[in-house]
Amino acid sequence: MGFQPDPGKKFRVILVRPQSPENIGLVARAMKNAGFADLHLVHDRLLPSQAHITAVHAEDILDKARLCSSVGEAVSDLDAVFAAVARHRKNFPSLALEQALDRLDELPSGSRVGFLFGNERTGLESLELRHSNFRFTLPQASVQPSYNLASAVLLTLFHVSRMAGGRGVVEPWERPLPRSEQEDCIRLILQKLEEKRFIRSGNQRHMDERIHDLFGRLAMTAADRDLLLAIFGKR
Amino acid sequence: MGFQPDPGKKFRVILVRPQSPENIGLVARAMKNAGFADLHLVHDRLLPSQAHITAVHAEDILDKARLCSSVGEAVSDLDAVFAAVARHRKNFPSLALEQALDRLDELPSGSRVGFLFGNERTGLESLELRHSNFRFTLPQASVQPSYNLASAVLLTLFHVSRMAGGRGVVEPWERPLPRSEQEDCIRLILQKLEEKRFIRSGNQRHMDERIHDLFGRLAMTAADRDLLLAIFGKR
Repeated sequence: MGFQPDPGKKFRVILVRPQSPENIGLVARAMKNAGFADLHLVHDRLLPSQAHITAVHAEDILDKARLCSSVGEAVSDLDAVFAAVARHRKNFPSLALEQALDRLDELPSGSRVGFLFGNERTGLESLELRHSNFRFTLPQASVQPSYNLASAVLLTLFHVSRMAGGRGVVEPWERPLPRSEQEDCIRLILQKLEEKRFIRSGNQRHMDERIHDLFGRLAMTAADRDLLLAIFGKR
Repeated sequence: MGFQPDPGKKFRVILVRPQSPENIGLVARAMKNAGFADLHLVHDRLLPSQAHITAVHAEDILDKARLCSSVGEAVSDLDAVFAAVARHRKNFPSLALEQALDRLDELPSGSRVGFLFGNERTGLESLELRHSNFRFTLPQASVQPSYNLASAVLLTLFHVSRMAGGRGVVEPWERPLPRSEQEDCIRLILQKLEEKRFIRSGNQRHMDERIHDLFGRLAMTAADRDLLLAIFGKR
């Protein structure tokens, strides 16, 4: 078994509002080092040409990188999304790296998995985190400084590629729904809770995040969705 | 055990003829991330000021970095030196990362250990490799590109700090409720669904199992339970 991501899964790296072109290039190089190819950028402008300077021998990844206007668009066809965060966010608890790798390992063959990384200064915002199933944090020796963006991507992908070392014949989980359908289901639940006045203007944002975290953690399958919709009532 | 290098040993990072000031700064930042402090530069000129730009929150490491005129001088007071190489060099076979970590682990407490990294383009030359005890190579998915200098340092130090099994300063997830309380909550949900005639005698066993699976997977915390009970109504 070589050093590469599980060939039975499809992986995507998603950079959200990256600031530094050099970092984008370094991310492409790190992806190549670790055997990844699919890069999506959530960005309101074209890929800056300086990114190519640091993307040594990884220009092809930049050339094929897709620009998206929103995180939702970048993850809609994925089955599970892991978001890198420097610490717990309100309503979005995060896993240690090892635990996140365990969750990833449990996903069945054929799963399409995204790794979400935020802007260098702000990280991922709550509205962006809602598009993830799991949050994870890379270990570090001190609170400051956080990892550089390209470093966070590199450490994450390196560990994913090392997983192929094999962890035994664990029965795989059923494959989750595409993120867009997970989101549709969560939105229907939210709607239902609004109708029941469980969610009101006063607690809307808080509840919205809590519900996203709670049901996101299920990495919802089609059967889960059917069950949830039946529980909450389709209308 | 925290995320940090073995406190019983002393560690040094040695950069040999580094070309890019930005890389030197990124190395300092990576050292800080992984809990290292001692940096030596084998360099024939003063530390360029641009290095400080990328050394976010790690300027102290740069300020204390020592300039040496030769590799021999930089390692003379160390007990063991590990040199990072992209591949075997003539007469200098290299270890896989895991093997190098084993060798490091075997060194007794009190050992002073150096990690040697070469110039971005040329790597370490044979004359420089002579100052090392072991050579090691980081796994990568393809021959090209090699790891960026700061990336190679980061991956190496990250693994050295992980040897202790530490997870760093990540706060743990909130602890799940005792199983009996998780079960109480699930039973209340089931009861509610029976009242709503969502669960009937015909589907009882099936639904019972499905609901247990669905809500069991959350590894429910106290906050999760409160949210679920509020959603489903307490009575």
